[in-house]
Amino acid sequence: MIKCKPIKTLATICLSVWGITTSQAQEPADYVNPFIGTSNFGATYPGPIAPRGMASVSPFNVSGSKNALEKDSQWLSNPYVNENTFLTGFSHVNLSGVGCPDLGVLLLMPTTGKLETNHLKYGTTYKNEVAKAGYYSIDLDKYNTKVELTASEHVGVSKITFPKGQSNILLNLGLGLTNEQGAMVKIVSPTEIEGVRTVGSFCYNSPEDAYPVYFVAKFSKPAERYGVWNTPAKYDGVEAQWMGYNGKTRIMENATRTVVGDSIGTYFSYNFEKPETVEVKIGVSYVSIENARENLKAETKGQSFETIYNETYNKWNKLLSRIKVEGGSKDDKTIFYTALYHTLIHPNMLNDVNGEYPEIKTGKIGKTSGSRYTVFSLWDTYRNLHQLMSLVYPEQQIDMVNSMLSMYDENGWLPKWELNSTETFTMVGDPASIVITDTYLKGITNFDVEKAYEAMIKSADQLENNPLRPGLSDYIEKGYLTTDSNGPVSTTQEYNIADYAIALMAKALGKKEDYKRFYNRSLSYKKLFDNDFKLLRPKNADGSWYSPFDPDKGANFEKNVGYIEGNAYQYAFMNPHDIKGYKKLMGGDKVFTNQLQKVFDLNKFDMANEPDIAYPFLFNYVKGEEYRSQKLVKQLVGKYFKNEPGGLPGNDDTGTMSAWLVYSMMGIYPVVPGEPIYTITTPMFEKITIELNETYYSNKTLTIERDKNSDGKIKRIELDGRKLNSYFINHADLTDNKHLKIIQE
Amino acid sequence: MIKCKPIKTLATICLSVWGITTSQAQEPADYVNPFIGTSNFGATYPGPIAPRGMASVSPFNVSGSKNALEKDSQWLSNPYVNENTFLTGFSHVNLSGVGCPDLGVLLLMPTTGKLETNHLKYGTTYKNEVAKAGYYSIDLDKYNTKVELTASEHVGVSKITFPKGQSNILLNLGLGLTNEQGAMVKIVSPTEIEGVRTVGSFCYNSPEDAYPVYFVAKFSKPAERYGVWNTPAKYDGVEAQWMGYNGKTRIMENATRTVVGDSIGTYFSYNFEKPETVEVKIGVSYVSIENARENLKAETKGQSFETIYNETYNKWNKLLSRIKVEGGSKDDKTIFYTALYHTLIHPNMLNDVNGEYPEIKTGKIGKTSGSRYTVFSLWDTYRNLHQLMSLVYPEQQIDMVNSMLSMYDENGWLPKWELNSTETFTMVGDPASIVITDTYLKGITNFDVEKAYEAMIKSADQLENNPLRPGLSDYIEKGYLTTDSNGPVSTTQEYNIADYAIALMAKALGKKEDYKRFYNRSLSYKKLFDNDFKLLRPKNADGSWYSPFDPDKGANFEKNVGYIEGNAYQYAFMNPHDIKGYKKLMGGDKVFTNQLQKVFDLNKFDMANEPDIAYPFLFNYVKGEEYRSQKLVKQLVGKYFKNEPGGLPGNDDTGTMSAWLVYSMMGIYPVVPGEPIYTITTPMFEKITIELNETYYSNKTLTIERDKNSDGKIKRIELDGRKLNSYFINHADLTDNKHLKIIQE
Repeated sequence: MIKCKPIKTLATICLSVWGITTSQAQEPADYVNPFIGTSNFGATYPGPIAPRGMASVSPFNVSGSKNALEKDSQWLSNPYVNENTFLTGFSHVNLSGVGCPDLGVLLLMPTTGKLETNHLKYGTTYKNEVAKAGYYSIDLDKYNTKVELTASEHVGVSKITFPKGQSNILLNLGLGLTNEQGAMVKIVSPTEIEGVRTVGSFCYNSPEDAYPVYFVAKFSKPAERYGVWNTPAKYDGVEAQWMGYNGKTRIMENATRTVVGDSIGTYFSYNFEKPETVEVKIGVSYVSIENARENLKAETKGQSFETIYNETYNKWNKLLSRIKVEGGSKDDKTIFYTALYHTLIHPNMLNDVNGEYPEIKTGKIGKTSGSRYTVFSLWDTYRNLHQLMSLVYPEQQIDMVNSMLSMYDENGWLPKWELNSTETFTMVGDPASIVITDTYLKGITNFDVEKAYEAMIKSADQLENNPLRPGLSDYIEKGYLTTDSNGPVSTTQEYNIADYAIALMAKALGKKEDYKRFYNRSLSYKKLFDNDFKLLRPKNADGSWYSPFDPDKGANFEKNVGYIEGNAYQYAFMNPHDIKGYKKLMGGDKVFTNQLQKVFDLNKFDMANEPDIAYPFLFNYVKGEEYRSQKLVKQLVGKYFKNEPGGLPGNDDTGTMSAWLVYSMMGIYPVVPGEPIYTITTPMFEKITIELNETYYSNKTLTIERDKNSDGKIKRIELDGRKLNSYFINHADLTDNKHLKIIQE
Repeated sequence: MIKCKPIKTLATICLSVWGITTSQAQEPADYVNPFIGTSNFGATYPGPIAPRGMASVSPFNVSGSKNALEKDSQWLSNPYVNENTFLTGFSHVNLSGVGCPDLGVLLLMPTTGKLETNHLKYGTTYKNEVAKAGYYSIDLDKYNTKVELTASEHVGVSKITFPKGQSNILLNLGLGLTNEQGAMVKIVSPTEIEGVRTVGSFCYNSPEDAYPVYFVAKFSKPAERYGVWNTPAKYDGVEAQWMGYNGKTRIMENATRTVVGDSIGTYFSYNFEKPETVEVKIGVSYVSIENARENLKAETKGQSFETIYNETYNKWNKLLSRIKVEGGSKDDKTIFYTALYHTLIHPNMLNDVNGEYPEIKTGKIGKTSGSRYTVFSLWDTYRNLHQLMSLVYPEQQIDMVNSMLSMYDENGWLPKWELNSTETFTMVGDPASIVITDTYLKGITNFDVEKAYEAMIKSADQLENNPLRPGLSDYIEKGYLTTDSNGPVSTTQEYNIADYAIALMAKALGKKEDYKRFYNRSLSYKKLFDNDFKLLRPKNADGSWYSPFDPDKGANFEKNVGYIEGNAYQYAFMNPHDIKGYKKLMGGDKVFTNQLQKVFDLNKFDMANEPDIAYPFLFNYVKGEEYRSQKLVKQLVGKYFKNEPGGLPGNDDTGTMSAWLVYSMMGIYPVVPGEPIYTITTPMFEKITIELNETYYSNKTLTIERDKNSDGKIKRIELDGRKLNSYFINHADLTDNKHLKIIQE
């Protein structure tokens, strides 16, 4: 554990030594292990970020054939893979836990000796990686150089300790994880660089919305020599014979004017007579270079690496401390707090310190007095992450809702999969309505509710030119999408869940007609229930069943008709809002229980993808079978979530897997997205204390407690000492009381 | 003729109609025909430029296979070729009369109907081209659209008259004449665009010095729709299969953030209910976008197309009126004034209105209170253009010398072939010393003479790491460069001429030792004289003659050993400073005369390249043979210089061919570069009145007169009524008197 106190002399006193993890970790932030999720396609990165920061710094080790997982030879969505070994820099904007490549640009790289600008040549192996909340360090083998990283919200900070001799700090603007190319750079002075890097085409979608990330890099020591390199495209034809330099890298010494190109970078070189450190601060913005510079100044001017780290550490610790856990092993605490940490990365800030941000679609620069959030992977996060925010960080959740409503103002539509003010239209469904309803029904209501309702109705009802709900006509007319559409079963189910949320909202707003209409719409999945299979099955346009039907098809991202990222088993129970109706449809509790159990027994359950992640909790709907849920959840946590790089089941999906873990370990789960209800399983800590935001909640804390010494079935649930006659509890009941107690056999 | 008076109501009264040339042209500027040199590889362009302007606007018709001379299928150095027919825009920075492709970028193009961004598709034929000093207009067939162009020093101005319907104004930042690629663009508002385009690699040299031209474009009418297009490079490999858009053009509607790429552009679209005009002003700078904007404002803010044209016209007329000619045909006047116009394009301004300019090599931004000139094609211009400037525009010539000295301050070296603060190192020799000496000895001395001398000596004497004089050790040791060097004979001769200039300067400064040393060095060409051939012949490193020796080899840019851009005949008499010595070496006047005549008789004379362009005047060195010069000069003018697009013998070489014509038509020629001397042939006008700058000259005017009605030999030359006993007159004698009279038989 590190404890640093910035003191007035501009120096910093550190009570323990960098890079050494002590065994006396006590604070929640000290349990964070950012390596979790950096293998097994978790797609997280180990580098530092401030809570919901725009900037982050990640070691970048996914380029070059020396790496097992290479970004250009496969679909790879993260800048860092734990089992790779060849590092080519540190990227300054990154996505955490997503399934498509983007960002992963602005690659800073220290080297020593003769200048080399080809990353395949300057890349290096490394050792002694240390990763903590807000801090990362690494030793680069080839250069005998240590790199330490931290970040404030808009600024990535590197502290590089060079050996004696010639040292170079490269800023590579060609290499990157994104599929977009193109950069502009200008060396402003021997201590400052400004520029732009194009990113976008997330999931190989919407290339016309590619956009720039602006940056300003500030160096603590003036470069003795500097310049730009540029590897231009190769000319063909008759002219090529006159160009001895055709396609070759050119080193532009002392270049101080603007250089643009697909494969460019800058070098700052030093000749050190003794080991020296250089600190590099890179401020970013999606608005302008000026704003990047303003962000840099506002957050880090005059501050040392240690001070910035200390501040970021404190921010993390304060947020993570909203949930205090007692009991449980160190690994339990580690996976818990790391998961909570992962839920506090995305959605992240899009606005600069002056409040400016790029609006969605309009091309204008908007301004907010609060936070404009971005990276809404809503198909994932509507299921549990926003529910977690509403409970623990409602002041953030309200800004997220307001950000979604701003998008509606700008764009005419709520977001679906919004990324830095571009709508990527990734995945299916209409999840924003669910998130807004869920938030509202939890009493977090200080947003423009009428506007929100209008936006929800628009996407639910507008038949023509509706980018959010393709196939809506079929859905309304027939009750389901047909095999003419993309993933018709999945999409029907998603629309059902969204319509159920709209129905709840309508009810809350006293709009009875709408309530009925949308509630009825929300049950149309039943038309796809094939009683022979006891599964939902695609239907053709003429109403006939799609044949031949193979319920196994579609797992592990295999493409199939009917389902998006899953097979029939993984969608069969994705009707959380109508489990009672579904049980009836299936033939009662027993059939339901057997069918559900079969998914697990036949190994059809996929922990790594969202459609079925609520399945383990569904046994709670059958009286007497609740222990199956208690046991399953515990098993799944033990099997898939570990204190190791492969310790996430797959893509973290901007924190959705992590939110699943946080809730599961707390023994409550928001089983019906949109509805303010939790279902109860066994907490994995003896005591969990959630600090509640008094603006939204009447109590200061909520405590969840269980027996210390039992692994047995739950035999009694108490709320403030009163017995709860259900494995379900609504949000108001939970937060209006102080103490949920789980008593086991 | 157009006469416009800007009046205070912000309107403009034009006394005659645009585009109609009256037959009553009277003013010097009205004689200018910018089409001269736009064919036969003259490499001039017909579009408007202000005198020595940074911006110019040229129709761009050298792209696409529909054009006979296509930029990518051959070495083509100009944005416009008169016989081509397929136009793809109007470029805003251009080089005039050069031999290598560069600039020719920032292509504005109006189209109508559906947006099309591929220039091969949107290109069009055209008609009704009109070109005048400061003005050009054209009708685009495909779009029924008229484009009129004018320019101030830093701003190109287009007035586009569209028909009713959808109209588009494209700014193509991909297409261009330069071999460099890469641009950045940002739509600032519906009336403004800013950006950067990379240029450089002139003559396929020094790619590491590629640099940006910054621009701001201002539209008189706000676009109704706008956006950016981008055609990115094509991806290879496994990722390509996920990119449906791979390598395709993407239209980025409403894009207002920075876009970078090799092949990008903007579109501004309108929907006009009646024919409408839009004016587009594009300000440029080599320093920054801010400076481009400042240039735009300072020169054109609130001014109409007509006002700007009127001002530019007046500037041209004022400068061209420094020489008034009487007698001669309209064509004579046209080729004369057009030639004078062509000498006033390069060198051109590099500094912005605020005095800032990019320094050479340092990467810094310099500031001048005068003019920082650029585009010094000195291998060409040292022979006559700067001499013309010293005589007629000494206030410009002194700024040119001071610009060269600033380069020495910045770079440590005088320029050789400087282009926008890059040293292209094109051609051979050390010509700056000659220009400086020539200027100084003509009494234009208000520069730092000691520094200039130091700079001259440095390039003449520094043996190691001397970028200006490769092969200097051999030259000093042996007296000549050997076949181990590039063009050893030519280079030896160039060094001789430069050394002669240094000798003259040394003498003028009282540095006797230097004078002797350099004078001796200047005669070393003699060691290459092969009496058998009566030619200069390359020598090998061991001192033996290079064999086999074919004096014919090397004409028409054929590569050969010994000579740069020429053959042995074309260099044989390029010893202007020592013709007396050379005559003696050859065996006397008769041999000399015969050998010189042979060059013409055998058709070895090349009017289109510089080494031999003084040959026609050299008969003046043989008493009794002067008429040969008089006749030859007249013949050559008649044969090669015409009032038609092919009316230049070849590349204008930034005005060198034109300066040759101006002097030749005035009957005087600065036959020894560096020495303030003219030789006399028959003037081609009856009376020529040169307005002299009183800062430098004691008289207000110099008049050159000849008999009105004779084509005969010169029989007497009078200076202010006194007979001149020579066909040579020095600069001081000429300018201290008022009246040179040529009396013919």
